[in-house]
Amino acid sequence: MPAFWEEPDFDNHEVVHFVKDRASGLTAIIALHSTHLGPGAGGTRFWHYADPAMAMRDALRLSRGMSYKNAMAGLPMGGGKAVILADAARAKTPAMLAAFGDAVEGLGGRYVTAEDVGVSEADMVAVSQRTRHVTGLPVASGGSAGGDPGPFTAYGIFLGVKAAVEQQLGKTSLEGVHVAVQGTGSVGGGLARLLAGEGARLTVADVDAARAAALAAELGGVVVPAEAIMDTACDVFSPNALGAVLDDAGIARLRAPIVAGGANNQLSRPHHGDALAARGILYAPDYVINAGGIIAVALEYLARESGQDCTVDTVRQRIEQIPGRLR
Amino acid sequence: MPAFWEEPDFDNHEVVHFVKDRASGLTAIIALHSTHLGPGAGGTRFWHYADPAMAMRDALRLSRGMSYKNAMAGLPMGGGKAVILADAARAKTPAMLAAFGDAVEGLGGRYVTAEDVGVSEADMVAVSQRTRHVTGLPVASGGSAGGDPGPFTAYGIFLGVKAAVEQQLGKTSLEGVHVAVQGTGSVGGGLARLLAGEGARLTVADVDAARAAALAAELGGVVVPAEAIMDTACDVFSPNALGAVLDDAGIARLRAPIVAGGANNQLSRPHHGDALAARGILYAPDYVINAGGIIAVALEYLARESGQDCTVDTVRQRIEQIPGRLR
Repeated sequence: MPAFWEEPDFDNHEVVHFVKDRASGLTAIIALHSTHLGPGAGGTRFWHYADPAMAMRDALRLSRGMSYKNAMAGLPMGGGKAVILADAARAKTPAMLAAFGDAVEGLGGRYVTAEDVGVSEADMVAVSQRTRHVTGLPVASGGSAGGDPGPFTAYGIFLGVKAAVEQQLGKTSLEGVHVAVQGTGSVGGGLARLLAGEGARLTVADVDAARAAALAAELGGVVVPAEAIMDTACDVFSPNALGAVLDDAGIARLRAPIVAGGANNQLSRPHHGDALAARGILYAPDYVINAGGIIAVALEYLARESGQDCTVDTVRQRIEQIPGRLR
Repeated sequence: MPAFWEEPDFDNHEVVHFVKDRASGLTAIIALHSTHLGPGAGGTRFWHYADPAMAMRDALRLSRGMSYKNAMAGLPMGGGKAVILADAARAKTPAMLAAFGDAVEGLGGRYVTAEDVGVSEADMVAVSQRTRHVTGLPVASGGSAGGDPGPFTAYGIFLGVKAAVEQQLGKTSLEGVHVAVQGTGSVGGGLARLLAGEGARLTVADVDAARAAALAAELGGVVVPAEAIMDTACDVFSPNALGAVLDDAGIARLRAPIVAGGANNQLSRPHHGDALAARGILYAPDYVINAGGIIAVALEYLARESGQDCTVDTVRQRIEQIPGRLR
């Protein structure tokens, strides 16, 4: 049986910190892939893993992804990520969040956390009672950036989709461009609204079929079953849910000249980037176009650490540099 | 494939901290089983594992053992242990020790380290350049306790052997008592000298046959091959090398009414304690009788943290309480 640091997803991560708090029932992994550019920054995922070994794999892959994402976004931050192992009922208690905050604090600022899948702004507020190394916190004053990074992530992906459409299809407008959006949560839903606002035609899907249907109704799009979205003939396939959808089988199914979405770690293995290119599909790397959220929370954190305010305009200007990184 | 926290050796450890330092080549695991009674205290092992999964298993088992040992010794310390994964050549560099010191420091005092197998007093001095959460450091002034805990461990085991001989054999003297000593390093060698000093008859063995032969020559004992020591007909079998020697096969081989030695985690599984009892063999639990070393380094650490001196007399008095814990 290989130890986790012998597995393919281990890439000389600097720290893998496993915490178990008996009193609250917290079980968490904090992985720091690299702190070369600054503290390892990346969100906390709260998830029930049927196979707990997958929790380690997620922590390793996601923290490595954050190193790339933060470096590509020009942030003075390294790559880190936390995974809280939920039970089947996904019970999340204040004591558990407090213990997690203590664990983050115990790393002395080498890891900075924020929201990720299954973790809300309110959860981060709870964590912030135990450590200052947390961001994505709500702000009181108008015009300041802060809170849920989802909308900022969506904005960056939206700009990335536009840039990809211009490059691959020669269109400077999204009018009539058909985008298949996989996942209609905070990021996918936000992206769909921005796309619809510029006249794009939408096909949407989600494992939560009702949520997808509501979004389609709101925006005048078409809803398809979750398992069918990758087969949609369209201009852009935009994965905003699961990672690793771009494997051999997934790539063979695609009927789109562009893949541009926000899901982390879309390529199952590095060689799948070549497989997309071989099919003539333009791939906007996830860690470039989904950096809007980390840009927002990193600037929020850095501003707070230096006692300054962080404006929404500053964050948006920084996010607007994303398309330039795709060229 | 089970994650490490699903394996039998995982016992709700509070923290498992994995560190990899690219620059120095350090790969280390720091396991904190419990910090309920105080900082997790336990030595650092430097070892080449043919199967790296065994490094995790060692860290988990050894740190749990330290929780029991420290609690039984009445120390205000929890259980922790570090394992540095050596390469096949067992290369150990100053940069590696410095990086390890940084890792200990990064845990902010929740882990206190000291010497263990493969780690010298000089190594701990190197580590102490990067963190104050280290003990087993040499002292300048005479009469102060400090440095290599091996002799203190040997002294505690010696007292444990005497107590076991009195209880099981009704003898208050070691004169003519036959002890088979497995392992002739710092602890086993020190024990053998103390036993010889009171007239015990010795059979010794070590994987380093030359070292065993030298000790036998020095003390007038008999040397046997390492693989034969457990078959020795004797009064006391004293394991002072590998852990887990008391498994089904090992227990069946024993030809001694007493097992009393310093090796950590001698019982392969908890039920092997019952197996020894069923054969009428008196077993002096490892974590009770090998506590002399941790008593010495813990008292040294606590004294230093409070700005005081720690005398050898204080340490010896504390170690002399060990036999009382066997009853």
